[in-house]
Amino acid sequence: MPARDAALRKARRRMNPLSSPLLTDLYQLTMLQAYFAAGMRRTAVFELFVRKLPPNRNFLMAAGLEQALAFVEQLRFPDEELAWIDASGLFGASFAAELAKLRFTGDIDALAEGTVFFPNEPILRVTAPLPEAQLLETRLLNLVHYETLIASKAARTVLAAKGKGLVDFGLRRAHGAEAGLLAARASYLAGFTGTATTIAGPAFGIPVFGTMAHSFVQAHDDEPTAFEHFAAVFPKNAVLLIDTYDTVAAAEKVAVLAPKLAERGIAVRGVRLDSGDLADLSREVRRVLDRAGLRGAIIFASGNLDEYRVAELVAAGAPIDSFGIGTSLATSSDAPYLDCVYKLAEYDGRARRKRSTGKATWPGRKQVFRELAPDGTLARDVVTLESDVRPGEPLLRPVVAQGRRVEPPVALAAARDYAGRELARLPGPLRSLAGAPESYPVEIAPALRALAAEVDRATP
Amino acid sequence: MPARDAALRKARRRMNPLSSPLLTDLYQLTMLQAYFAAGMRRTAVFELFVRKLPPNRNFLMAAGLEQALAFVEQLRFPDEELAWIDASGLFGASFAAELAKLRFTGDIDALAEGTVFFPNEPILRVTAPLPEAQLLETRLLNLVHYETLIASKAARTVLAAKGKGLVDFGLRRAHGAEAGLLAARASYLAGFTGTATTIAGPAFGIPVFGTMAHSFVQAHDDEPTAFEHFAAVFPKNAVLLIDTYDTVAAAEKVAVLAPKLAERGIAVRGVRLDSGDLADLSREVRRVLDRAGLRGAIIFASGNLDEYRVAELVAAGAPIDSFGIGTSLATSSDAPYLDCVYKLAEYDGRARRKRSTGKATWPGRKQVFRELAPDGTLARDVVTLESDVRPGEPLLRPVVAQGRRVEPPVALAAARDYAGRELARLPGPLRSLAGAPESYPVEIAPALRALAAEVDRATP
Repeated sequence: MPARDAALRKARRRMNPLSSPLLTDLYQLTMLQAYFAAGMRRTAVFELFVRKLPPNRNFLMAAGLEQALAFVEQLRFPDEELAWIDASGLFGASFAAELAKLRFTGDIDALAEGTVFFPNEPILRVTAPLPEAQLLETRLLNLVHYETLIASKAARTVLAAKGKGLVDFGLRRAHGAEAGLLAARASYLAGFTGTATTIAGPAFGIPVFGTMAHSFVQAHDDEPTAFEHFAAVFPKNAVLLIDTYDTVAAAEKVAVLAPKLAERGIAVRGVRLDSGDLADLSREVRRVLDRAGLRGAIIFASGNLDEYRVAELVAAGAPIDSFGIGTSLATSSDAPYLDCVYKLAEYDGRARRKRSTGKATWPGRKQVFRELAPDGTLARDVVTLESDVRPGEPLLRPVVAQGRRVEPPVALAAARDYAGRELARLPGPLRSLAGAPESYPVEIAPALRALAAEVDRATP
Repeated sequence: MPARDAALRKARRRMNPLSSPLLTDLYQLTMLQAYFAAGMRRTAVFELFVRKLPPNRNFLMAAGLEQALAFVEQLRFPDEELAWIDASGLFGASFAAELAKLRFTGDIDALAEGTVFFPNEPILRVTAPLPEAQLLETRLLNLVHYETLIASKAARTVLAAKGKGLVDFGLRRAHGAEAGLLAARASYLAGFTGTATTIAGPAFGIPVFGTMAHSFVQAHDDEPTAFEHFAAVFPKNAVLLIDTYDTVAAAEKVAVLAPKLAERGIAVRGVRLDSGDLADLSREVRRVLDRAGLRGAIIFASGNLDEYRVAELVAAGAPIDSFGIGTSLATSSDAPYLDCVYKLAEYDGRARRKRSTGKATWPGRKQVFRELAPDGTLARDVVTLESDVRPGEPLLRPVVAQGRRVEPPVALAAARDYAGRELARLPGPLRSLAGAPESYPVEIAPALRALAAEVDRATP
């Protein structure tokens, strides 16, 4: 069918795959067609939550809500996508016409970005006509899962760094473009100082940091020339990479060069170490710099760092001012995914659950109430029905009503401040990098257990 | 400075962060400014390679070249990005004007996509004026690292599946949009049957597969109604999810329903299991289906599968026709990154290397020669200087010359066929899912060792 092939080719060329509504599992579309055919458009409630914590995690931090809401607001099928759906042969004749009309018209309740949360607590709840709520699943998970994964990893690194600087260096080994961009955002939200990913500056207003690569030093015939070339161009801001050949010898070269640069009005901002024993080397380099009167020059460390290495270096009293954290952050390398799902809890006024082995869910539209200890730290959460009345603070708040945001987007800096206050409320044992001896208490309320029993009796 | 702020805001709104040249480390730009200032524009040679294999990997598979070349061909700084650079205060006055002229004018040699390779073997070599070659680093790594990571993971799953079907289910927990899209591509390249990610159909011509979610079953009052609604809409292609409540009981319901559907011309294509003991359940379900005369109905299995579970199920003779592989594939969960780097090997005709502790590199522009055993399997690779003459097949081939592709893009289907032939050439011990007792021999040629010694003598 050459006409069909030509239509497909033309539609393909005009799509933007990364923002297309076809960036979803095919089964969302096949289910939608079946829902349309059966006239199933009544109100559904879906909840997004994490089933269990990965090893060595004591808490998670909610992130990605802003990107999720932007996706929901902009959800529609462009002409190219509709043409592809028509020509693909995968769907019925009227399906594209139905999809063309589809917008999100429902409600969303969610945890604020930066909120600390635990397994089985809904972090986002969608209440909408079934096809709309269903269609969100894949991309909503894709966005909220990743940013939550990274914010949670970054929050651990923030706890380990005890106030020292932290810069995201992860773009090159992040899983693609969006992962790199959103790792910068999620880590800044969790308390990082900034990122090396330039586009995160204009895209999110995140401070960007950059030094030099080994190739810069290698491209010059000797280190002093490389350092001088760089410092001359960035007279207030040069951080010089000193581990290309011999770290301490290069620090000595910086000490010799600094007075000559000072005569030209150029101050060395600092040095970067990227290999070797960072505790020992940072001490030796600090001595060299101090002897040369460069007490204001900072020491920046990078190279296969994660929260465990940062904690060791801080505990050893290494004179490192800032850490660059790359691969371990952007891939959450020790736990590269969360057991994060989006499950139907209610349809057409009736609570629903699945009972699949090892994957059973709690039915009904839910709320999480958080109780605090007298010192203001987290004491206990209770997951219950939305209709239940419990003491404590309800964590899920309305963010979208009838398809529109309830409030303007929260500024990232404000969300970051809130995340910092959340980390300050963590009880001591949950702040440990290892698994806490006891997990944080999340109680499933009697009202919820009673509903589950009732649903099981009613389901054949 | 309100005028500057307004310029920044306007530039920001018009950028596409995921395709912007600012999706790079800030240090690439600071280095470029220093190179421009020092007049350092002579020819540099950079090589992209993996330093060592992750645990339990015996080989890697090159992927992502097509995306990398598209990035290189399209590399330029749009007006918005230039306006931001000007207004950011991070750079000198003439920097944006220099960047505006920048295009990639150099050469690239690379392994064909689908080629099996090993540590220390360049998989891509860039020869270009220093600023151009330097600027590619971050995004080139970001693209080639991820697709290579996923193709390498997928290739293991292909070996484990011994000819059974494999479908990528990973989008929801892939790290962002691009990871989901490129996981579909990289796994198909390595031999997967297709993907559930719809956009991979129009974007890459990959077969797309979809069934139904638990929510579809739950939204109905009972399973037979759900199955019937779905089958009526997809009369030739319905794969029914049967583990929402009780897998074997649901299979019995399918057996009862099938003859009624058959009267309406509807054939059940198969069933999907997503939880429980898949070996046992698949056998029970097969018996139920066979007894009902549904011998042609396939059994599709999913749920926390990876290459190890697939190998177990295949070894146990479980009657499963196809596997859906999600999170473990799209995040390469047991090894979520490769120690993949892009290093300067030569500048202005002089070989270069770094000697940083644990991260030393081999200098000079290199080639890899592959020798085969008499039975056609891989016998040994030799990494040497490009100028060296060795027996065997040279793996790096010219793909870009003076900024332009040497040949039109390779069709994905052709690259997939080539990848299949590469897997067929793997020696037996490397096909194991566990670490092979001996790693594949990659020899560093005497010519390369001699050059390294020479470079060390010359570097202060």
